[in-house]
Amino acid sequence: MSEPDFHTAIELIGKRWTGVILQHLLAGPARFNELRDRIPRITDAMLSQRLKELEQAEVVERQITVARPVEIRYALTPVGTKLEPVLDAVRTWSKEWAAAHHNRD
Amino acid sequence: MSEPDFHTAIELIGKRWTGVILQHLLAGPARFNELRDRIPRITDAMLSQRLKELEQAEVVERQITVARPVEIRYALTPVGTKLEPVLDAVRTWSKEWAAAHHNRD
Repeated sequence: MSEPDFHTAIELIGKRWTGVILQHLLAGPARFNELRDRIPRITDAMLSQRLKELEQAEVVERQITVARPVEIRYALTPVGTKLEPVLDAVRTWSKEWAAAHHNRD
Repeated sequence: MSEPDFHTAIELIGKRWTGVILQHLLAGPARFNELRDRIPRITDAMLSQRLKELEQAEVVERQITVARPVEIRYALTPVGTKLEPVLDAVRTWSKEWAAAHHNRD
């Protein structure tokens, strides 16, 4: 079984902070500062790095608004929005997993 | 939105090699050497480390066979087997993602 796309995909979305960033972008495009404020403990450097990786992977794109002053917003690409069922599945599982842990405590 | 379980879960399964190891274990329990042989390029140290993390997370457990010589096999726990829809969703998305890339080449 050789599935380089699966391998690359799961490691992309599982990188530290990336899942949480994607989850916020599923709610709609957001400015850098908005994302930072919504994600406690993330640093500017880390957020910037992760957004750059997601842009390179064509999962996120930058949108420049026509309003003045110009604003840059980060948005999911069409294929990026298709991550919703993946993140939903992770969320569902994470609750089952947490419940299994608690039952043993 | 504060979802520590989601955060921890997505980073657990997205760690380098972990997704691939889980995918193989979904097919059934396997010995260490079987897993290593099925996963090209993984080192013994890395496989050992990842299995240890998954055991700590109660996603994987060691089974000791009653046969002689005794064999140790790694198996998904009940909550570990519930990762199947998560990994299926990642696989489906990885194909859409790869197709989106290829269309731009």
